[in-house]
Amino acid sequence: MRAEIIAVGSEMLTPDNLDTNSLFITEKLNEVGFQVHFKTVVGDDEQDIVGVLRSALQRSRVIIVTGGLGPTEDDLTRRSVAAVLGREVRIDAGIVEKLRQRFASRGYSMPSINERQAEVIEGAEVLANTTGTAPGMWLVENGVGIALLPGPPREARPMLEKSVIPRVAALGNGRTLARKTIHITGWTESEVDARVAPIYRSYPNIQTTILAGTGQISLRLFRWLEPGENPSDLDRLSAAICDALGSAVFSASGEPLEEVVGRNLLKEQLTVAVAESCTAGLLGALITRVPGSSAWFRGGALCYSNELKISFCGVPEELIAAHGAVSAEVAEALARGIRSRTGSSIGLSITGIAGPAGGSAEKPVGLVYVGVANDRCTIHARRIVPGDRQTVRERAAYFALAILRNFLLTPGGSAPSSSR
Amino acid sequence: MRAEIIAVGSEMLTPDNLDTNSLFITEKLNEVGFQVHFKTVVGDDEQDIVGVLRSALQRSRVIIVTGGLGPTEDDLTRRSVAAVLGREVRIDAGIVEKLRQRFASRGYSMPSINERQAEVIEGAEVLANTTGTAPGMWLVENGVGIALLPGPPREARPMLEKSVIPRVAALGNGRTLARKTIHITGWTESEVDARVAPIYRSYPNIQTTILAGTGQISLRLFRWLEPGENPSDLDRLSAAICDALGSAVFSASGEPLEEVVGRNLLKEQLTVAVAESCTAGLLGALITRVPGSSAWFRGGALCYSNELKISFCGVPEELIAAHGAVSAEVAEALARGIRSRTGSSIGLSITGIAGPAGGSAEKPVGLVYVGVANDRCTIHARRIVPGDRQTVRERAAYFALAILRNFLLTPGGSAPSSSR
Repeated sequence: MRAEIIAVGSEMLTPDNLDTNSLFITEKLNEVGFQVHFKTVVGDDEQDIVGVLRSALQRSRVIIVTGGLGPTEDDLTRRSVAAVLGREVRIDAGIVEKLRQRFASRGYSMPSINERQAEVIEGAEVLANTTGTAPGMWLVENGVGIALLPGPPREARPMLEKSVIPRVAALGNGRTLARKTIHITGWTESEVDARVAPIYRSYPNIQTTILAGTGQISLRLFRWLEPGENPSDLDRLSAAICDALGSAVFSASGEPLEEVVGRNLLKEQLTVAVAESCTAGLLGALITRVPGSSAWFRGGALCYSNELKISFCGVPEELIAAHGAVSAEVAEALARGIRSRTGSSIGLSITGIAGPAGGSAEKPVGLVYVGVANDRCTIHARRIVPGDRQTVRERAAYFALAILRNFLLTPGGSAPSSSR
Repeated sequence: MRAEIIAVGSEMLTPDNLDTNSLFITEKLNEVGFQVHFKTVVGDDEQDIVGVLRSALQRSRVIIVTGGLGPTEDDLTRRSVAAVLGREVRIDAGIVEKLRQRFASRGYSMPSINERQAEVIEGAEVLANTTGTAPGMWLVENGVGIALLPGPPREARPMLEKSVIPRVAALGNGRTLARKTIHITGWTESEVDARVAPIYRSYPNIQTTILAGTGQISLRLFRWLEPGENPSDLDRLSAAICDALGSAVFSASGEPLEEVVGRNLLKEQLTVAVAESCTAGLLGALITRVPGSSAWFRGGALCYSNELKISFCGVPEELIAAHGAVSAEVAEALARGIRSRTGSSIGLSITGIAGPAGGSAEKPVGLVYVGVANDRCTIHARRIVPGDRQTVRERAAYFALAILRNFLLTPGGSAPSSSR
């Protein structure tokens, strides 16, 4: 069950633009049993589009074409598909009328050029566009399904889901794809793989891939299901992996770390405030990505200078002088200080060396200390994170969240200081 | 001068991964006069790879293949290219020795499987890999240049620049691409286009594209140059556009807004501190993306709650009660407060409604106020920015930087309050 995706548009052949529609199209095709074997980007050139379509018709059972359905001379998808299939194109009066109404409802009269968007290939089903002007099309030629979708994702996605995928599924053999995603923090990619490879290798029908993201590792499990088959082995493998990785797994349902931490804080009716040095706001911004985070996040201080570590968080000047601003002692003092200054249940701090300058043999670029304080104890964690300035900062923010999560998991709200 | 890019790897045919190498490859190919006409992603399947290569040989003068050069059974690029060209593959003893040394220098002995990375296609030039194990290759077949590059960007990019582009250039006709990028803030895409379209239309040899990014619009101008031709019209067009857009242009050299603002602050020996409500750290994180920003950034306060607006920035409780936390009055008070609490030359504040909840008819989601205070005056600016929660927050942070830039441009450091 081979499918392929063709994105039409010269702008995606410049250094500035990628085709990203193919990601959600692939996901939806997989769900109804089709694997994507080719993705092609082709410019606004009829001969080039025709060439790719000819190859596609010979090698794929489903072809999804995006883009090139606009009203201008550069929009060549309709006529190219018609040419390859040897079919005519005609203006559909009903579509012209709908386009006119759409323009009228916004107080415009339709430019005559937009009539081109009412061109329909002989024998094609017209797919309604609920979020834009260009209708899509669905054709079947010698058993091969061909969908034409508009380029803008907000138009392509609903049309794909509502109109195309049911038609694609009908061409399939009833197979579907079942998927699970497990999110892990605090381990490296190779540590995760070493631990779970012996487990997933005993499930030969399930494909497992490991993706390393910023501050987290994701394990993706997926398995093709024959009609009527149920994915119980997928559930078993997922459970076995979660067992083996223990508390390193923060989500087996795709939830991001900031949501998991937020939910845990809310459940315990705790609040948190942050004191950030090298990250200068990334941690606060991460925590508040979650709608409703004002229920557990008060705010905090950006202490980029030593003066503000002292004035905003009450870090003793002598402590900085004795240990340096990037130290376990200052991380702990920042956490305690921001907790008491904000009246939050928990203070969470980051101090580190983001680079590119400022590193030394003893304190290299990438060195990060995190502090966590509640009313009973203060802990810290240390790590050297790899990457350029911005990557170090992003990883430091995720590292702090992971440490906070561990802190919340530990009975009594305290975890031993970790270092690595 | 047609080129195409083929990315080999089944992982790029999943919903999780895109080929991004093609962006910098396109940029470099353009610079030596080649336009990219096709980009194809193909899986780890010899028949599929062979099929794409056959088409490519018929339609392109340069073919860049990335990926599939690893040591495993899944790495099929070498043998697929050899098969299409009808050439042999042999193990190169010199490369084997280099691979062994590379492993040895890290304290490992080379797994025998890695010998496959020493396979060289008959007649190919070997391209050194300075950042990884797999060497690249360059072949010419009937005048078509074919480059094989490793998949990881940090290996592909240096090999492309050092070894491939000079060989590609030698196949070209001496044309090159000249480019200019102009960054604009504070205007919408259609406002920019309405103003500059009459100008760029009178330069028919120059292609102009408008890209809308977060908080900024970019105008890209480019022009193919024949050998010996100079791009003086590109300079003239760039200057005419900058004239027409005036202070809305913040860079004609590609510099990001946070660098421009940082440079301006440094030049005037000014420092800034931030008070952030809805952005909760995004503005501080943005300012400190620039290495060395500690010279102009002290820190600031994340005042997500009203309590912290009062305690950290001294905003009068009655002011919040009278006008609401999202108001011009509170934005100005936050800016004044954070300035005085941090001893900075300038205070910069954001308060707004990021959504998805919390909006009203009077104060809708996306409403953002920015405040700026120095020792002489305080101003505010108001805008309703579109987008989802995270987009509103990111746009609010860029909006604040843009307002700060205007403030710094105005003689005496004050600009009129703007609203829109």
